[in-house]
Amino acid sequence: MSEIRIAILGASGYTGAELIRLLRNHPQARLVALTADRSAGKPIGSVFPQLAPFGLPDLVAIADVDWSGVDFVFCALPHGTTQAVIAGLPSHLKIVDLSADFRLDNLDTYAEWYGHAHQAPGLQTEAVYGLTEIHRDAVQKARLVANPGCFPTSALLPLVPLIEAAQIEVDDIIIDAKTGTSGAGRSLKEGSLYCEVTEGVHAYGVASHRHAPEIEQDLSRSAGRSVLVNFTPHLMPMSRGMASSIYVKLRPGVSAEDLKATLIGRYRDEPFISILSGKDVPQTRHVRGTNRCHINVIADRLPGRAIILSVIDNLVKGASGQAIQNMNAMYGLPETTGLDLVAIFP
Amino acid sequence: MSEIRIAILGASGYTGAELIRLLRNHPQARLVALTADRSAGKPIGSVFPQLAPFGLPDLVAIADVDWSGVDFVFCALPHGTTQAVIAGLPSHLKIVDLSADFRLDNLDTYAEWYGHAHQAPGLQTEAVYGLTEIHRDAVQKARLVANPGCFPTSALLPLVPLIEAAQIEVDDIIIDAKTGTSGAGRSLKEGSLYCEVTEGVHAYGVASHRHAPEIEQDLSRSAGRSVLVNFTPHLMPMSRGMASSIYVKLRPGVSAEDLKATLIGRYRDEPFISILSGKDVPQTRHVRGTNRCHINVIADRLPGRAIILSVIDNLVKGASGQAIQNMNAMYGLPETTGLDLVAIFP
Amino acid sequence: MSEIRIAILGASGYTGAELIRLLRNHPQARLVALTADRSAGKPIGSVFPQLAPFGLPDLVAIADVDWSGVDFVFCALPHGTTQAVIAGLPSHLKIVDLSADFRLDNLDTYAEWYGHAHQAPGLQTEAVYGLTEIHRDAVQKARLVANPGCFPTSALLPLVPLIEAAQIEVDDIIIDAKTGTSGAGRSLKEGSLYCEVTEGVHAYGVASHRHAPEIEQDLSRSAGRSVLVNFTPHLMPMSRGMASSIYVKLRPGVSAEDLKATLIGRYRDEPFISILSGKDVPQTRHVRGTNRCHINVIADRLPGRAIILSVIDNLVKGASGQAIQNMNAMYGLPETTGLDLVAIFP
Amino acid sequence: MSEIRIAILGASGYTGAELIRLLRNHPQARLVALTADRSAGKPIGSVFPQLAPFGLPDLVAIADVDWSGVDFVFCALPHGTTQAVIAGLPSHLKIVDLSADFRLDNLDTYAEWYGHAHQAPGLQTEAVYGLTEIHRDAVQKARLVANPGCFPTSALLPLVPLIEAAQIEVDDIIIDAKTGTSGAGRSLKEGSLYCEVTEGVHAYGVASHRHAPEIEQDLSRSAGRSVLVNFTPHLMPMSRGMASSIYVKLRPGVSAEDLKATLIGRYRDEPFISILSGKDVPQTRHVRGTNRCHINVIADRLPGRAIILSVIDNLVKGASGQAIQNMNAMYGLPETTGLDLVAIFP
Repeated sequence: MSEIRIAILGASGYTGAELIRLLRNHPQARLVALTADRSAGKPIGSVFPQLAPFGLPDLVAIADVDWSGVDFVFCALPHGTTQAVIAGLPSHLKIVDLSADFRLDNLDTYAEWYGHAHQAPGLQTEAVYGLTEIHRDAVQKARLVANPGCFPTSALLPLVPLIEAAQIEVDDIIIDAKTGTSGAGRSLKEGSLYCEVTEGVHAYGVASHRHAPEIEQDLSRSAGRSVLVNFTPHLMPMSRGMASSIYVKLRPGVSAEDLKATLIGRYRDEPFISILSGKDVPQTRHVRGTNRCHINVIADRLPGRAIILSVIDNLVKGASGQAIQNMNAMYGLPETTGLDLVAIFP
Repeated sequence: MSEIRIAILGASGYTGAELIRLLRNHPQARLVALTADRSAGKPIGSVFPQLAPFGLPDLVAIADVDWSGVDFVFCALPHGTTQAVIAGLPSHLKIVDLSADFRLDNLDTYAEWYGHAHQAPGLQTEAVYGLTEIHRDAVQKARLVANPGCFPTSALLPLVPLIEAAQIEVDDIIIDAKTGTSGAGRSLKEGSLYCEVTEGVHAYGVASHRHAPEIEQDLSRSAGRSVLVNFTPHLMPMSRGMASSIYVKLRPGVSAEDLKATLIGRYRDEPFISILSGKDVPQTRHVRGTNRCHINVIADRLPGRAIILSVIDNLVKGASGQAIQNMNAMYGLPETTGLDLVAIFP
Repeated sequence: MSEIRIAILGASGYTGAELIRLLRNHPQARLVALTADRSAGKPIGSVFPQLAPFGLPDLVAIADVDWSGVDFVFCALPHGTTQAVIAGLPSHLKIVDLSADFRLDNLDTYAEWYGHAHQAPGLQTEAVYGLTEIHRDAVQKARLVANPGCFPTSALLPLVPLIEAAQIEVDDIIIDAKTGTSGAGRSLKEGSLYCEVTEGVHAYGVASHRHAPEIEQDLSRSAGRSVLVNFTPHLMPMSRGMASSIYVKLRPGVSAEDLKATLIGRYRDEPFISILSGKDVPQTRHVRGTNRCHINVIADRLPGRAIILSVIDNLVKGASGQAIQNMNAMYGLPETTGLDLVAIFP
Repeated sequence: MSEIRIAILGASGYTGAELIRLLRNHPQARLVALTADRSAGKPIGSVFPQLAPFGLPDLVAIADVDWSGVDFVFCALPHGTTQAVIAGLPSHLKIVDLSADFRLDNLDTYAEWYGHAHQAPGLQTEAVYGLTEIHRDAVQKARLVANPGCFPTSALLPLVPLIEAAQIEVDDIIIDAKTGTSGAGRSLKEGSLYCEVTEGVHAYGVASHRHAPEIEQDLSRSAGRSVLVNFTPHLMPMSRGMASSIYVKLRPGVSAEDLKATLIGRYRDEPFISILSGKDVPQTRHVRGTNRCHINVIADRLPGRAIILSVIDNLVKGASGQAIQNMNAMYGLPETTGLDLVAIFP
């Protein structure tokens, strides 16, 4: 097919840079506009020196983009400001939004967790939740895709099939998640300083992280009723990577092997998902820089329980990579286009 | 009181070095023998250059120690070889053993998890499990103390009082633990190489780690019946530190606040334990290099559940520091002697 | 052109894994044999789990490779053992050797630094030193290329053109180099353990590192007379990356700007080399995972001196990437084939 | 002697926290005031949770300190603002200032490098440069000590004795320095974010760092004439530690062994300085958390040159530890009081 002319809104953040890194290897992608309002007029190399050598367009303000030459938009702007920006874009554009703005279907839930009424409720109705392997059919037909959060991606990929198969209890799901620091973005916060992150670990957002309702939304869809989860994120001394250790109670008569068989069956033809063999443990370093998700299920020492281990790269499958996967799906391209990558290790 | 003449068996490992670091600030401690069979005859600075400037005794073989000049032994030898060594020591010696050899009261459990019959069952009967805050009375009278494992220390300190208070269900305890790499010791393993550890995270020993029965032993004691737990350790890209996130089900009518009140009451006079305020999250970096344990309890988003967060330095409160605390208790010294340390941060 | 059937000898080390990662994106490369004598018979995923999903051939012993189906060999075996292996290979094979075995033209120098007589002196005569940008003509015609060491690559790329232009004094070159730990390979050494590397820095091989004669060989070629250098490597707490800070004395009448102009002219058309603008400092993270070399020259505070900063990824431009670049040159392919990569950052 | 009542101005930064950590082990030190204008009224635990358990005074504004109850001040305020603050303090106070404000004797040099005229030239005349081992006599009599910068400390300790002994050429000194990120302080800068620091290295402040004139000042004193140096700092992916690799030209007839003999003689009785044996390389991790400086001298491969390796902990001997050492000297206490520490390793 012919090329897709792409604009990235918010190109000066980590997910923006990651989109650029990945799209350069995408044969149909042509980057025509990169925006960063505060750095408008500067070369992209001024904010990301690693991108200087590649002949990319200079940064511009969103207001200065000529939309007539754009087919597709990746929106990597901060939560809250995104909805107004997208509401103002021409309707011929297809869009994948990497913010949280269009992820929650229920406007009340959005208002409760984000502290203000949604600014574009009509678009919210139109938006499709872009967990590609789960909502592929809807994504393929969508004009506006809400790209999932990193934590929800790592948790939902194993959990949704198991709930659909009625193999686990839905009222007893505990998600202990560990994330690299790039998930906090490039903004200046004391807690993101090298000296505050290296050589230590801590939980944060305990029982109050905004990805909880996002996880619960898709689990509730699968279960056919309202589901709550324990979701406890931890900040790791690493840039990239996300590991979710999920503790579940098995429904009567179900074994850990049954869970594994369900996942193997469900993801057999998925190019980005591996269900590991035996008791092999997924490691974040084995998916670093890739759009892959590695999963395994191991029987718990507690009778009637199982442990699900799921790892992704939070910036790729948890953000920019899945966004490109969604773009590919929206255009009918093979989803691996531009994403057929081997992890960078060590 | 007069000085304690101390031998450290196994001084060339990380816990041995940490004992030396801490004991140099202990006013009653005098290091009279450091053993390391493979490095016998060499100065300690040849295996730990940071110790070279301090006038310490040279390394010797265990067989060459003159026990008549020794009062106290820290045994930091590998699991399995320790029991025979300790069985051969003169009976005037007081001993804290940092290995796992004397931690499990039940000899069958020992044989099951360590793969061979115990070599010194009589000593096992004598040994006291040295979780100081929990077993202080027994420790004070003991001649041989089995120093707890790092994971059990971080998990038992919050859990034992809550089980004793009958505030949590004992059949639904999930311990997701994160440890620094020093817990694997200084031995050469591919999985301990810098390139295999940095910038990534993974679970290990899932449902099969030897610290599970050790945790269960003390929980069973507290509960008055057999308790099993989920215990899932994860390897962190950091040298030191251990964080246990513990997911518990509350007994009817009990709240997370009740749990916290129990812990505050129990540990009010303990110099090494802090129950944090509000929703403050314990961070491993805030106890680095110290014998401290920081704990908090936060209500779960799942009704009727709570999240307990507990952090220690695996080499100090999880090993060498608690060993010295036990020695202090065995001699009637203030337990903080030599251990009144502020965390090294950043 | 048609595909190149490739064998990698020594696929279980870091440079072997990196060759596989990069070659999967090379449209002409087909991996037909991966050897690892100690792991023969196992899948590559057993030594590098990140490679499991990609349908690669199982590991075999070198003795079991069917050379009739192989066109090209990357040899990533340890120093010393390589020369005998390569001497035994069929002569129809083109070879890039990543070890040090064929890098030193002078057999006496080899014997002096490597402690034994060279085992394949005839092949040594044939071998071409594969610093591609400097020896491109010879590489293109070569059958056997000795891939340069990582430190020599980072130092020679800036220094050779400056010596050829007679702009710097050749008797006063000081190379302070910093390398990631992957340069030490995957073998088990105490000094490569995570706990021994993280959060610290130290020099090693001071005035005695084997890359010194390799650097001096090419500098002597350029100068037309024997050149010695100071070369002081330092081990960094990072997996990948190499930064050489080179302190040079300017010849009379020459300025730092003159040096920079020389490098800009020399490397204007080189796709992998960037001479940075103004006082921008090269950073290893901006070339991570790529075959790029970023260089800048800054006037020293000491009159008549300049500082040259040069960074590469030691596993790519310093090893596997340059090896593929050389293969491309040997087949007349564009050198960027399979290597047109953006740095992975953060 | 009786206790010293101490105020720390600027207690919310890393050097302030480090002063508190170290002073808690100082038998004569009593912390009576901790200032942090922006956090006045809060407990110190609100900015440094690791300090919460220790019964320290709450943070106050500088204006609210009751100086009548204070004997000694550590001033850990930012450069530029310090001089006015100190000029306003009562004259009965002894002061060690950790900023750069009083380090440069020459007011013109100060103005040139710091961009404004000095605000307290009279105090500048009074201030003593507190490189303790070099200027001990003056420090002991001083009321106001300017604590040296971290880079100058690591470079001057080996260089001053060698220049005084006329063993090295003073016009050819190259200092390649590597520092931990804590040297940049706790202020919010993009370049200090975890993701921007981890797993990479780069030079900064090349030929323009403010520690250059400070180094040159003391070298010029020693040489009896103006000395310039190359000083090239590099940012390391580590919190603490500083390694200076110093490349020097030997004066005629002088060997590297002669340099080492000079340093051994000069520092024989210094408790914090070790000249390492043979070719042992100093490592920053072996001085981590301590006030120590480890040095070695190794003959260069270039004839007539030598390599000096010097490591410190930038926050201790490079800042807070040396400040306490200076306080000890000012009060006639043993300089090791409170500072007799073993490195924390791993």
